[in-house]
Amino acid sequence: MRTVRLETFADGVIAIAATLLILDVRAEGSPLGEELRHIWPSYVAYAISFLTIGIIWVNHHVVMDQIARVDRRFLFINIFFLMTVAFIPFPTELVAHYIRDGGNDARAAVLAYGFTFTFMAIGYGVLWRYAASGERLLKPDADPRTVAGITRSFRPGWIVYLGATLLAFASPVASLCVFAALAVAYVLESGFFARSDNLE
Amino acid sequence: MRTVRLETFADGVIAIAATLLILDVRAEGSPLGEELRHIWPSYVAYAISFLTIGIIWVNHHVVMDQIARVDRRFLFINIFFLMTVAFIPFPTELVAHYIRDGGNDARAAVLAYGFTFTFMAIGYGVLWRYAASGERLLKPDADPRTVAGITRSFRPGWIVYLGATLLAFASPVASLCVFAALAVAYVLESGFFARSDNLE
Amino acid sequence: MRTVRLETFADGVIAIAATLLILDVRAEGSPLGEELRHIWPSYVAYAISFLTIGIIWVNHHVVMDQIARVDRRFLFINIFFLMTVAFIPFPTELVAHYIRDGGNDARAAVLAYGFTFTFMAIGYGVLWRYAASGERLLKPDADPRTVAGITRSFRPGWIVYLGATLLAFASPVASLCVFAALAVAYVLESGFFARSDNLE
Amino acid sequence: MRTVRLETFADGVIAIAATLLILDVRAEGSPLGEELRHIWPSYVAYAISFLTIGIIWVNHHVVMDQIARVDRRFLFINIFFLMTVAFIPFPTELVAHYIRDGGNDARAAVLAYGFTFTFMAIGYGVLWRYAASGERLLKPDADPRTVAGITRSFRPGWIVYLGATLLAFASPVASLCVFAALAVAYVLESGFFARSDNLE
Repeated sequence: MRTVRLETFADGVIAIAATLLILDVRAEGSPLGEELRHIWPSYVAYAISFLTIGIIWVNHHVVMDQIARVDRRFLFINIFFLMTVAFIPFPTELVAHYIRDGGNDARAAVLAYGFTFTFMAIGYGVLWRYAASGERLLKPDADPRTVAGITRSFRPGWIVYLGATLLAFASPVASLCVFAALAVAYVLESGFFARSDNLE
Repeated sequence: MRTVRLETFADGVIAIAATLLILDVRAEGSPLGEELRHIWPSYVAYAISFLTIGIIWVNHHVVMDQIARVDRRFLFINIFFLMTVAFIPFPTELVAHYIRDGGNDARAAVLAYGFTFTFMAIGYGVLWRYAASGERLLKPDADPRTVAGITRSFRPGWIVYLGATLLAFASPVASLCVFAALAVAYVLESGFFARSDNLE
Repeated sequence: MRTVRLETFADGVIAIAATLLILDVRAEGSPLGEELRHIWPSYVAYAISFLTIGIIWVNHHVVMDQIARVDRRFLFINIFFLMTVAFIPFPTELVAHYIRDGGNDARAAVLAYGFTFTFMAIGYGVLWRYAASGERLLKPDADPRTVAGITRSFRPGWIVYLGATLLAFASPVASLCVFAALAVAYVLESGFFARSDNLE
Repeated sequence: MRTVRLETFADGVIAIAATLLILDVRAEGSPLGEELRHIWPSYVAYAISFLTIGIIWVNHHVVMDQIARVDRRFLFINIFFLMTVAFIPFPTELVAHYIRDGGNDARAAVLAYGFTFTFMAIGYGVLWRYAASGERLLKPDADPRTVAGITRSFRPGWIVYLGATLLAFASPVASLCVFAALAVAYVLESGFFARSDNLE
């Protein structure tokens, strides 16, 4: 029951954050056709952020499936986590606007983007570690292999994101490509090429 | 259970995308009465997009009713599909702004609008084909006639949208009229003139 | 089951429309304290629209409680109805912006506001009439007195709103006061002064 | 059943209000890195408001857990309460924009922020008092200790917020720090340092 209400709230924030991304895609001026080609970084940033938020939603779903009950600390860790997810539209717009300028502004935009994702990954890790350590909130019948699998996949998450973020000091575009590749790799690895699909 | 959470998320994104459409209806200046008449394309674009998103919601509802379970691939196909739905407010605003100018800008706006709908229809088709092929995710008691009916109606969807989109090269206004007609025809055909209404 | 999903979607659109109202409350400039007093019509318009949307939500709740099942026509009537609810933030902003200017612009703003509410009331009436006529979609155990009460209260709804709207030709401020009074009267009459409260 | 629909609506408004906060975080200009440091009050205001809205959500959850049924008056008190929650993004943006200017504008911004929170706390208190007085809407098996605990914690709520608000006349920054401290204290006190965690 309570788990359901937390899921509803989290799903709400995640769905709204994803849908608000479009408000930062803007084109004006004439000829419009040229302008629509000119703003291609907006489409790329929209796609990477929407897909990443979608992955966040799937992961939240995977985590909550193992959890039997929530306590207040878990609620607040969840709120901190959602705070980072709801933040994503802001750096997405910065990346869309500044990536093509190159130089310091592109770097600052990608750093803001990457640090947001890094904080989000840290929040996710804390959320899961709190629930799973000592099986504090887990379902009695939680599958140990699945639990170990989630732990294994969340532990390096923030380090990978931090690495991708710091790459922006060398090349903002390369850093952005890594974020795109991470999202696509996640989808491919966990869904499309997996031999067995144990979700159901 | 899992199907429910996917529906909640999809309903959230679809409802938000529809409701955000109003943010792009803007009137300013004096005399306001004249300005409110001047922006009639905003009302038309709002109505077509809202109705189309409403139809998308009804169709999603029809599809999910036949589905017993979801796997990860289905989740990600669904996210790609929602990415196209959440994109709709952007080209809607372009159409509202540029359709009256005629010429190349109106054409570019309607092309953006039409391609968004075409991608959305492709996403829907892939979603359904993935669920239905080999009855992969269907309910054991799914009605074969309904399943065949959905398949029959989704197959030509993207081709019709693509045709309506390409019509914009000849006439942006005609193209927009076809999008409006498609939405109205869908409502009339499947709801208002149908002899028997098998939804329930 | 299906009724639940329609309710979720409607609640989503209604909640989003209400919450988006705040995006049109804006203050800028210095001294800020003076500016915050200057924009009082924004607070009034926000309060009237939020309360009216809240009443719409309560009424939708009352209607859906009597309904056992939905068919496609009902779904589409519901979408048309939600289209008018989601439209409310636009004329709300016009009223907030123009009511103090007086003259023709204030009149145009209040007319836009009032016609939106009138269309909304018509949509509600059609929704209910479709469900209730011949008890088409009603629960077998729907209370005849409640059904008759809803019919009685919905029938004059759009006429009252239309009257309040046309009053703007004489005085936009008076028209706005009537909209505020209607919302407050609805709350007082149906909730606070009612002898018996049969909702539960 | 009805309680569920009220919770869904409230969760919707609360989640949307929290997620809309990001729309007021804006950075533009070059060098972007400097600009991103310059707007630090936006991050602070975002964090305080998001956390406070999160606490509101948790509290709503705690209150609704004790409630068996809702009547119309409760519905409308709830709408008034949500009206204050949905208002929060507006003064949050004012604080983010004006706090650094100091002087009268910063004071006006923090006063707007504080009065919004004070009204919200009053709304919450009225909501709870209406439900709890004479155990009007409480569950038959509501825990008297929990009920007394909620009453004890809600009674001083608005006075504390009013005090923090009036502090802005002396120092806007100090006032804002108190709002931040209140949110953090709430999290620490009720979640992280509590000896026993009775939520579940």
